[in-house]
Amino acid sequence: MVLFRRVLGEALRAARMQRGMTLREVSKEARVSPGYISEIERGTKEASSELLGSLCQALDIPLSVVLREVSSAAALEERALEISTPQIAGRGGDVVASAA
Amino acid sequence: MVLFRRVLGEALRAARMQRGMTLREVSKEARVSPGYISEIERGTKEASSELLGSLCQALDIPLSVVLREVSSAAALEERALEISTPQIAGRGGDVVASAA
Repeated sequence: MVLFRRVLGEALRAARMQRGMTLREVSKEARVSPGYISEIERGTKEASSELLGSLCQALDIPLSVVLREVSSAAALEERALEISTPQIAGRGGDVVASAA
Repeated sequence: MVLFRRVLGEALRAARMQRGMTLREVSKEARVSPGYISEIERGTKEASSELLGSLCQALDIPLSVVLREVSSAAALEERALEISTPQIAGRGGDVVASAA
């Protein structure tokens, strides 16, 4: 299962890096402790919708853009998970069995 | 500010309707109470990442697809907010002040 908070954290961290902002700078803008933002970026804490909105404002990035990036990253992970645990494995076995 | 949980709730509800599933059916699949799912759909409760994953599995929709839809809906709301509260209003005021 792809965990939303982990992929979101990576996207928020990437956005902060791209802007060359420190945790402390975002913290000041968003009025949240740097430690809490760090936990969100590492995907260990869930961000409330209000906090997510504040972080987007602090980073000057629309929520829709962050979510688009999270969606793209999640799609890549979903594809990777499909490849590592293919759901058609059972069917493949059946084909071999019926051909024998 | 566009609230993530509200837009997410609307997307989850739309996905459930599209599949013709009742709250009770999703509840059974996702092992969450129907009341809790209803609150998430109405945007009054935040869904943890684990619960969001379970709901996506119960609805048989990838998380990436839900997030893409939430991103599109958020983008529309952001545009509507921009139109109703234009950020250049302040600048216009400055021009008037300096011309006086």
